[in-house]
Amino acid sequence: MQNLVEYIQTLGQKARLASREVGRASTLTKNQALLAMVEAILAERETIRRENAKDLAFGRERGLSPALLDRLELTEARIDAMAEGLRQIASLPDPIGEIEGLKCRPSGIQVGRMRVPLGVIAVIYEARPNVTVDAAGLCLKAGNACILRGGSEAIHSNRALLACIQQGLRQAGLPDTAVQLVETTERAAVLELIRQDRYVDVIIPRGGRSLIEAIVAESRIPVIKHLDGVCHVYIDDRADLAKAIRIAVNAKTQRFGVCNAMETLLVAEGIADKVLPPLAEEYRKAKVELRGCTRTRQIIACLPATEDDWYAEYLAPILAIRVVSGLDEAIEHIARYGSAHTDAIVTEDLNHARRFLREVDSSSVMVNASTRFADGFEYGLGAEIGISTDKLHARGPVGLEGLTTQKFIVLGDGHIRT
Amino acid sequence: MQNLVEYIQTLGQKARLASREVGRASTLTKNQALLAMVEAILAERETIRRENAKDLAFGRERGLSPALLDRLELTEARIDAMAEGLRQIASLPDPIGEIEGLKCRPSGIQVGRMRVPLGVIAVIYEARPNVTVDAAGLCLKAGNACILRGGSEAIHSNRALLACIQQGLRQAGLPDTAVQLVETTERAAVLELIRQDRYVDVIIPRGGRSLIEAIVAESRIPVIKHLDGVCHVYIDDRADLAKAIRIAVNAKTQRFGVCNAMETLLVAEGIADKVLPPLAEEYRKAKVELRGCTRTRQIIACLPATEDDWYAEYLAPILAIRVVSGLDEAIEHIARYGSAHTDAIVTEDLNHARRFLREVDSSSVMVNASTRFADGFEYGLGAEIGISTDKLHARGPVGLEGLTTQKFIVLGDGHIRT
Repeated sequence: MQNLVEYIQTLGQKARLASREVGRASTLTKNQALLAMVEAILAERETIRRENAKDLAFGRERGLSPALLDRLELTEARIDAMAEGLRQIASLPDPIGEIEGLKCRPSGIQVGRMRVPLGVIAVIYEARPNVTVDAAGLCLKAGNACILRGGSEAIHSNRALLACIQQGLRQAGLPDTAVQLVETTERAAVLELIRQDRYVDVIIPRGGRSLIEAIVAESRIPVIKHLDGVCHVYIDDRADLAKAIRIAVNAKTQRFGVCNAMETLLVAEGIADKVLPPLAEEYRKAKVELRGCTRTRQIIACLPATEDDWYAEYLAPILAIRVVSGLDEAIEHIARYGSAHTDAIVTEDLNHARRFLREVDSSSVMVNASTRFADGFEYGLGAEIGISTDKLHARGPVGLEGLTTQKFIVLGDGHIRT
Repeated sequence: MQNLVEYIQTLGQKARLASREVGRASTLTKNQALLAMVEAILAERETIRRENAKDLAFGRERGLSPALLDRLELTEARIDAMAEGLRQIASLPDPIGEIEGLKCRPSGIQVGRMRVPLGVIAVIYEARPNVTVDAAGLCLKAGNACILRGGSEAIHSNRALLACIQQGLRQAGLPDTAVQLVETTERAAVLELIRQDRYVDVIIPRGGRSLIEAIVAESRIPVIKHLDGVCHVYIDDRADLAKAIRIAVNAKTQRFGVCNAMETLLVAEGIADKVLPPLAEEYRKAKVELRGCTRTRQIIACLPATEDDWYAEYLAPILAIRVVSGLDEAIEHIARYGSAHTDAIVTEDLNHARRFLREVDSSSVMVNASTRFADGFEYGLGAEIGISTDKLHARGPVGLEGLTTQKFIVLGDGHIRT
């Protein structure tokens, strides 16, 4: 155990030192490193595939589910996608150094804010080796050092990818300790990592709820986290019927297993008779199981919804439906049962739209658009390291800017306080 | 104990409900409440003084130090200052509802960010009753409900002030549960409060390091905290001598017991012979004890500095002085020993200034200005709830904006994702 503590502390110390070098690196140097990583990954394609095959063989022996094995596998297409992802990160504008709102104050000083890296970021994730490359690329472009801890099932793949990443760093003249991997598969390593508040500035966990809750309970370091996505679409009595149907179908059926898919549909009683029957027909075609409140079941045939359904994140072809009296009850329902992820209203009424935008307290609030748009690429952030359901610091899709902070800068000419 | 748990949970639930009402309240309503609080405080001046006298009498009996008794006392002038503080908060622009960067995306949707309240803020502080009024005013203006836990020595004063605050809320038609006080003086109440992650969005502790560290260790809720202020002034070899002396004297001597006072002076060896003797003379006049490195002591007479002095936040008329080879060594020293609060360079060299601004990782970084400017009023934030030495969310002086967050808003016209 002593060795593990020392090992993690050493990773932290090295990351802290490296963070100062990447924090002041020029945009050109960081982009050169990203593109050298691309070269290395493409050149080492065979090695990566071979190491990945070891993980897959181990995984099959240990009886991993087909879904997990699928996420673990690095196909040719996925290797190309990782490389393309790094190229895209290289092409994004560098957020570091931007100065905002520099103003003259009555005392004579100028005060503004400069965007700067967070420092050292620890990313804790499951057995998805492509996250290793994405996270390393995003952290580097935002001027941070990172410590990566991927699922132990992907250790061979991750080591092979790390070798390419570190080669890219060295080629650009950056310290290869700017991206480090926790090489031990011991679970205690995570516990130790989240206590290194001297060396680590923020933890980003990507994984299931239990992993994230355990980290929050034990961490002394701020955590940017993603919990549930219980997303709602509310069809207002002033909705356009065609838009309502298009959005409600897309939000539920475009993909089922994603956090920004709709899980509960709220319908104003004034429009329920008109909109529910054609919607039910669309959901029947898409094989979506419907669970409705009493009033819903007076209009369409479906299973009864229980209290638990309103809290449920199905991530599956199941939809809860509730008829509400109008906007106020819809907002109440979302405040009570929602997870503050993404919620949408369909309405042609300007004041209803304004109230929904202001009063629904979610990371993304939408008017006449599908919840499926809640995504870093769709929002123009370029790439995302995750979606935050926290309120502090970063909320919603987290791109490069979420991996930075701002400091105050003050410019004077010998000014003193009197 | 069961009763305490229930009591704190009930406070949390009421605050959560109230937060939705103040979150959507208009600027006019919030300002009316703030001004009604002013009226109530001025009208109840005698009651406030009488209740404060009880706290002072108890405090004297319990042997509180003169410094603590001084902070506890609500003089006529302090009551006026609290009222004036609320008036100023009412006159500040309302940050809530501001929409930033609304852009059209290739998909046809518009995406931007809207500034919204955090929700429920718990402020934990010592026996300074004026903080009760400041914190309530700032939280309300930023659209938040708050739960206040002041030092138990101030309980009578705080209750009297709370009555005025709640009267103001009611007069404006807002729920008086938007500002609540933890009325029990039991310490366990704080422990319970910082675990209410369902009802409280952020904790702001104001007090000594041990209070803050205990809260961070136990809290499941994000904490915006202020730890040490080990501030540096670095006099570069390219400094203007007169500006260097003016700034170094002001940063140390304008006030001693404040977090933005200089604690360590760094001097480039190229200018040390010229600048240290006149500076030592100024510090002698201001009765500042000097503790220098070996090279400093070859130039001026002073006590020897030990390794501990470089880490020290004296908050007293003591100054550590170190001669460094130049900019690189100064940046190294600050990275190693500093507390990332506020650091300044004095130089006429543009590139030295640029590098210092970029590479020193502190909440405020200054060029040719006294560290004493690190303050919400001086920065034009209007009023501050504290200074954050955290990197996430709010860094440096925290005004109204630090008590808010941003959500994404998406505007479409029936747009779906394909």
